[in-house]
Amino acid sequence: MASSDADGHTPTATPAQGDLFQKCRAYQEWFDSQLELLGFYPFFAAIQEVRGTTAVIDGRDLLMIGSNNYLGLSWDPRVKEAAIAAVKRYGTSCSGSRYLNGTLTLHEELEADLADFVGRPAALCFTTGYQTNLGAISALLGKHDHVFSDRFNHASVMDGIFHASGRRLGTIKVHRYAHNSAEDLDRSLRSAPADAGKLVVTDGVFSMEGDIVRLDEVAEVARRHGARIYLDEAHAIGVIGATGRGTEEHFGRPLSDLIMCTFSKSFGSLGGFVAGDREVVNYIKHEGRPLIFSASMPPANLAAAAAALKIMREEPEHAQRLQRISARMIREYKAVGFDVDLAETAIVPLIIGDDHLTFRFWRALFEAGIYANPVVTPGVPPGRALIRTSYMAIHTDEELDRVLEITAAVGRRLGII
Amino acid sequence: MASSDADGHTPTATPAQGDLFQKCRAYQEWFDSQLELLGFYPFFAAIQEVRGTTAVIDGRDLLMIGSNNYLGLSWDPRVKEAAIAAVKRYGTSCSGSRYLNGTLTLHEELEADLADFVGRPAALCFTTGYQTNLGAISALLGKHDHVFSDRFNHASVMDGIFHASGRRLGTIKVHRYAHNSAEDLDRSLRSAPADAGKLVVTDGVFSMEGDIVRLDEVAEVARRHGARIYLDEAHAIGVIGATGRGTEEHFGRPLSDLIMCTFSKSFGSLGGFVAGDREVVNYIKHEGRPLIFSASMPPANLAAAAAALKIMREEPEHAQRLQRISARMIREYKAVGFDVDLAETAIVPLIIGDDHLTFRFWRALFEAGIYANPVVTPGVPPGRALIRTSYMAIHTDEELDRVLEITAAVGRRLGII
Repeated sequence: MASSDADGHTPTATPAQGDLFQKCRAYQEWFDSQLELLGFYPFFAAIQEVRGTTAVIDGRDLLMIGSNNYLGLSWDPRVKEAAIAAVKRYGTSCSGSRYLNGTLTLHEELEADLADFVGRPAALCFTTGYQTNLGAISALLGKHDHVFSDRFNHASVMDGIFHASGRRLGTIKVHRYAHNSAEDLDRSLRSAPADAGKLVVTDGVFSMEGDIVRLDEVAEVARRHGARIYLDEAHAIGVIGATGRGTEEHFGRPLSDLIMCTFSKSFGSLGGFVAGDREVVNYIKHEGRPLIFSASMPPANLAAAAAALKIMREEPEHAQRLQRISARMIREYKAVGFDVDLAETAIVPLIIGDDHLTFRFWRALFEAGIYANPVVTPGVPPGRALIRTSYMAIHTDEELDRVLEITAAVGRRLGII
Repeated sequence: MASSDADGHTPTATPAQGDLFQKCRAYQEWFDSQLELLGFYPFFAAIQEVRGTTAVIDGRDLLMIGSNNYLGLSWDPRVKEAAIAAVKRYGTSCSGSRYLNGTLTLHEELEADLADFVGRPAALCFTTGYQTNLGAISALLGKHDHVFSDRFNHASVMDGIFHASGRRLGTIKVHRYAHNSAEDLDRSLRSAPADAGKLVVTDGVFSMEGDIVRLDEVAEVARRHGARIYLDEAHAIGVIGATGRGTEEHFGRPLSDLIMCTFSKSFGSLGGFVAGDREVVNYIKHEGRPLIFSASMPPANLAAAAAALKIMREEPEHAQRLQRISARMIREYKAVGFDVDLAETAIVPLIIGDDHLTFRFWRALFEAGIYANPVVTPGVPPGRALIRTSYMAIHTDEELDRVLEITAAVGRRLGII
C-alpha cells in the first residue's frame, strides 16, 4: 500500500489504490509468526461440555478457575428452570428494541427489583453489560463535559468514552488518572474548569488484579469538585460486602451517583443495568443509543437474571463462601511465594511479569488439567503479565487443594516461585 | 448552570459549579411537557404475554404488526426446544468473553454453518447485532481511512463509525451519501485520495422504509474506486431473495466483501455475525473490542439461532409466504390510498408526514387492537413521520384482512387517505 497522505491531498503521481483490508493481511502475517513462535494458541479455546466447575476441552476434563460465574448461578437448577419456563412462555427473542416492540413486563419487574436491591429509585436494563457502559456513559457525556477514568477500568468504560468523543466531535475532555489514586484524581479534577460537567468512572473491583476501589477517598474528592460518580460493579456485586451486595456494602454506605452491573458474572446470565435517580435513568433510557437501537434482553436471559437476583438476596451464604474461598487462596498463594499483589477478592492474579513465561505457565496448567486465563500486554502494562485466576462459590475444598498443589508444582518447575 | 467555557479557560469570577446531571433535569422538564401535550406515551409499551402474532398489553389482545420476527421463528416449537435443551446442557451463561473462557464448540459450529449459508470462507458471532456493527466497523477503520455510509443506514452503523472516530482521535473521514444514490456515493468516493483505505457501508433492506439497496450500482461504483463493501443484512436475510437468503440472492450474485446480520430478527434469537475472507474475519476477531470485552452469546441464544438457521435452509416456504404477504399488503395499502413510497419488502411504512398526526394514528390503531410502531423525527427526516408496519410469515390471511380493514377505517377517519 502506498504511503498514505489521506487528509485531503490527492497525490500528483498516479497512486497505488488503497485497500482497507491491507491491515488484515499484515496482521495475519504477524499472527502466524507469533503462533509459530509460541507453538500453541491460548485464546478462544472451545469448550465442548460444562459440568459445574468442569469444562471439557479437546475431550479432557479441566477444572475451571477462569470463569466469572462467581456464585455458580449459571449452573443452578432454579436459574436454569426459570430460563426454560420463560422460553416456553415468551419464546426465544423479543424481536425488537425496548423502545418499540421489545419490552416485556419481565423487563420492568426486573428493573424494579434491581433498583430496590441497590437502594436507588430507578434502574434500567441493557442487553449486555458492555452496552450498559457504552450507552449510559455516552449518553451522559455532552459536549465539553469532562470525564475521569481510572487507568485500570474495564475496556467497556473506555468504549463508552470513545463513542461519546466520536459523536461529540472530540469535544469531550478525557482524563485517565493513576490506578486507584484519589490524589491523582484530585489533580485531574483541579485541571478542569469549575463550571464544566464532570463524571468520575471507576470499577468497584478491578477486573484483572482483583483489588477494590478506594471509593471513600474517590467519593470525597469527587464531591469536593462537584463531579458525579459512576460505579461499575461487574466484579463486585455477588462478591464483596457482608451479604454480597458490592462495593457500597463493603464501605457501609452509598458513595456513588450511578451504579452499573453486568448479568454475565454473578447473575449467571447476559445483560446489564444502570441504577440511580429517576430523571437520570429516564435520560439514559431515551438518549442511550445501544438501548434504543438494539434488540432487548430475551426472555431466557431476563428470567435467569431475575432468578439469580432472588437467590442472591435470599441466600447470602454463597457470597460468604466465595469470600472464605478467596481469602484462603490468596493466603496460600502468598505462602508458597506467588506474587498476588493487592488481590483481595475472588479474582486472584498470579503475577509473572514476562509475556512468554506467562504463556508457558498457562500451558503447563492446562496440561495438568486446570483452565485459567493468561493476560499479557496490552491487557496489562508491559512487564505485568499475569495468570488471572478466579473462584466460584461452587468450587469444593478438594478442588481448591488440587489447584494449589498444581500451581505450586508448576510455579516451582518454571522458577516462578 | 453557568454558561460553559469548558475548553480549558478557568473563568476569573467564582463560577457556579457545573453539574453533569443538569442535562437530565432539563430533559425531564421537556419530556413531561411533551407527555402532557400528547396525553399518552407510545414507546416502551410493556407486553404481558406473547402468543404468536398476539401481544397482550394492559390486559388487551393486540395483533402485532410491529415485530422483526419475520419468519415467526422465535415462537417455533423447534427453536424453543433447542434453546431449552441448551440451557439444560450448558447452563444460562458462558460467564466470559469469547477470547477467554466464553467460547463453546456451539459458537464454532454456528459460525461454520453461517459461513456456508452466506457463501463466505469464515464467519464470526458477536453477542448482539449492535455489537457486530460496532465491533466490525470500528476494527476495520484505521487512522486516515475513509468510510461512506448511506444516510438511511441503521444507527448501529453510525455508532461503529463514532466509536472508531473517538478511538482514532478524529482521523477517520466520514462521508454520508444520499440514500441509495450510487451517483452521490461516486461523488464522495472521488473526493477521497486514491490511496486511502475506503469502506462503503450499506443496509441491504433499509430498516424504516423497507426499500432494497441498489447493490449492483453501489458495488460497481465502489469497485471502481477500490473501496470495500460492508453489507448489513439485518432486515434482508430470511426476507428477500428467492429462498430468503438476502440481498445477494435478490441480485443473483455476490456483490459485497463483508456480510453482517443480526439474530434478533429472522433468526428469532439475539446476537449477530459478520462473514467474509478468513484473514479479514480473523482481524476482526482480534481487534473487535465488543467481541474481546463482552460476554459471549449464551447457550440458549446460540441454540435458537442455530435451529432457526436450519429451518431457514430447509424450509424456504416461510420466506416465500412472507414475500407473498408483503406484496399483498403493499398492493392493498396503495389501493386504498396510503403512501407507502418505495416499500418492497416485509417492512411497509405508512407515511403520514406530521409527527403529531402520526401519534394520533398510532393511538387509534392501538385502541382498535393493532400494535404498530410510530417513527417520528429524529428517527426520520422532518415531515417524514410514519407508522412502520412489518409482517411475519405466521400472520394468517384473516389477520391481514383485519389489519387492512382497521388501517383503512382509521386512515379515513383521520383524513390521511
